[in-house]
Amino acid sequence: MALPTVTARQRVLAVGLIGPGRVGSALLDQLRAARPRLARGGLDLRLCGVAASRRMWLDADDPELNGRFGGAQTWRPSNLDEFVAHVRGDGSRHAMLIDCSASDAVASRYAEWLAAGLHVVTPNKQAGSGSLSRLQAIRAASRTGARFRYEATVCAGLPVVQTLRDLLDTGDELLAVEGMFSGTLAWLCHRYDGSRPFSALVREAHALGYTEPDPRDDLSGMDVARKLVILAREAGWSLSLDDVAVQSLVPKTLASLSAEEAMEQLQSLDAPMSAHLARAQIQGCVLRHVASLDAKGHASVRLAILPAAHPFAHSRLTDNIVQFTTHRYRDNPMLVQGPGAGPEVTAAGVFGDLLRIAESLEVR
Amino acid sequence: MALPTVTARQRVLAVGLIGPGRVGSALLDQLRAARPRLARGGLDLRLCGVAASRRMWLDADDPELNGRFGGAQTWRPSNLDEFVAHVRGDGSRHAMLIDCSASDAVASRYAEWLAAGLHVVTPNKQAGSGSLSRLQAIRAASRTGARFRYEATVCAGLPVVQTLRDLLDTGDELLAVEGMFSGTLAWLCHRYDGSRPFSALVREAHALGYTEPDPRDDLSGMDVARKLVILAREAGWSLSLDDVAVQSLVPKTLASLSAEEAMEQLQSLDAPMSAHLARAQIQGCVLRHVASLDAKGHASVRLAILPAAHPFAHSRLTDNIVQFTTHRYRDNPMLVQGPGAGPEVTAAGVFGDLLRIAESLEVR
Repeated sequence: MALPTVTARQRVLAVGLIGPGRVGSALLDQLRAARPRLARGGLDLRLCGVAASRRMWLDADDPELNGRFGGAQTWRPSNLDEFVAHVRGDGSRHAMLIDCSASDAVASRYAEWLAAGLHVVTPNKQAGSGSLSRLQAIRAASRTGARFRYEATVCAGLPVVQTLRDLLDTGDELLAVEGMFSGTLAWLCHRYDGSRPFSALVREAHALGYTEPDPRDDLSGMDVARKLVILAREAGWSLSLDDVAVQSLVPKTLASLSAEEAMEQLQSLDAPMSAHLARAQIQGCVLRHVASLDAKGHASVRLAILPAAHPFAHSRLTDNIVQFTTHRYRDNPMLVQGPGAGPEVTAAGVFGDLLRIAESLEVR
Repeated sequence: MALPTVTARQRVLAVGLIGPGRVGSALLDQLRAARPRLARGGLDLRLCGVAASRRMWLDADDPELNGRFGGAQTWRPSNLDEFVAHVRGDGSRHAMLIDCSASDAVASRYAEWLAAGLHVVTPNKQAGSGSLSRLQAIRAASRTGARFRYEATVCAGLPVVQTLRDLLDTGDELLAVEGMFSGTLAWLCHRYDGSRPFSALVREAHALGYTEPDPRDDLSGMDVARKLVILAREAGWSLSLDDVAVQSLVPKTLASLSAEEAMEQLQSLDAPMSAHLARAQIQGCVLRHVASLDAKGHASVRLAILPAAHPFAHSRLTDNIVQFTTHRYRDNPMLVQGPGAGPEVTAAGVFGDLLRIAESLEVR
């Protein structure tokens, strides 16, 4: 049988980065290192602008200049409209905006950009866990326009959102999600055995850089709840942040203080945590910070008392875990585990999304 | 900013299935159930032929007939050339061959089909773990022609091959792979505590349908070694099956018998396994069947003695585990765990590959 052969595809993708913070900078490093390899694979990646909150630079979209990306370009005051128009160009090439900010205002622009044919990739949790009507508008825009991907919103570079998407798209049915979505809280729960006060562990984690600048942002459980909302919505469930029963580890007395005052008053965490630990230990169990979602749509983020044989009892110190129970994975769930935070792995999650979209680009 | 909007894409994909066994049949069920949903998403999936080893049927490629897929079509003697030409059609639509056989001869045709623009998706491990030069030809063909995907060759529906691909493509570096790639051997190792002879557990697993028809096919470790070779080659390492140090659990006396005789002589497994277990127990450790690959390219499949705190010591009975240690996931590896065999989850892995390719199809 003599069949004709077909030839390789060459595609151009213009990329603009919004939010050159720790994740954005790590991503620029990864993209810069990968450009020659991607070019050999038929993808001409053009980094053509970076927008911070106050200033931005626009590259002349010249491959020669791209070699000096991050170099001596001129910065000017930020103007997101101008930035997006520059990245989009005249529509003769593919274009992508990568939002590595944590801005809700930027997320409010996604639908418009997608409708205009600009792909959007982001580790920013605002769109996925914020207003449901805004997310619906974003999804509607991506159905007819460009593509929207956000793998790194849940557990950074671990394969979580796409894994759930594949389960659903191949006809499986989600029955439950259970997980530990905070490396910080996993570390604290693992280390907390009563030999030292909980507040001392929080101070140690803070000093090691494991916590947010204000550790209450971890202890409140809200960031974990956002990830749970993103996964629930991925499964088509209309869950909002308000629907998640979140057990905050931050006592009310601590919640009302300034960040500096709160660090000084951390010992107010100790009495309630000590009571939780005692209840766990008396049952021969362990304390773990667990997010869960069941088939009835009940969602919670809480300190759970788990038997020592539970898979979450044995995870490595700062690991995230996500466990999907589905119709096909009903007896034994599917589980993904590993570090779920940090600039490099988060950037890699974003980069993976970029590559997934690049695969689907037509030659222009 | 007024940007023009773009419109949705409609694509046609003709699919031919080679090997309608348990996995192939499960896949046909899944595809049939998904067709209306895929159509709403802009993918017109046309199931236009099924080839078994001796007979095949070719659909008239009529959407009306497709509704009765698997129904009253006429079967005729198999002719793979004719089959492939039918699936390909006149080149005006996208076409994909799905190889759910375990045939080495079928794998030898992939390169030719890919070069001709037919996508190939398979759970068949022959191409990935067989001759290296054949795999290189397949890869060369897929670089310029159609796409080749094989996620389900390793741990069925678990996200393993694509996860490794994403790590590498985003610039990470693989340092080690460690895993339990056989649910059967995991179950046997978990249950084997010395209270019953190992052979009795093998008989029980056989009766439960957990083993291959001839349990020696599991106990030899060769299927596990094939998966390790596939992952090593995914990372660009030129490993072959002969390079893997495989510790077979089948004594030589048992290896030379017929399948029936072997089932009667299973007790010859017991003395060596009992010695392995004693060595593990004296150290307070457990026995696990582990595949591993390190950065120097050393590959082995063996019974390992692991401390009770090792993540592999606590997995659920029949689970597979794959653990990637990379430059970015160096301190804590990334881990994927869950059932790694069975028709439904294997078919879902194949279906996921089909969807990944469908995403990238241009409108024709």
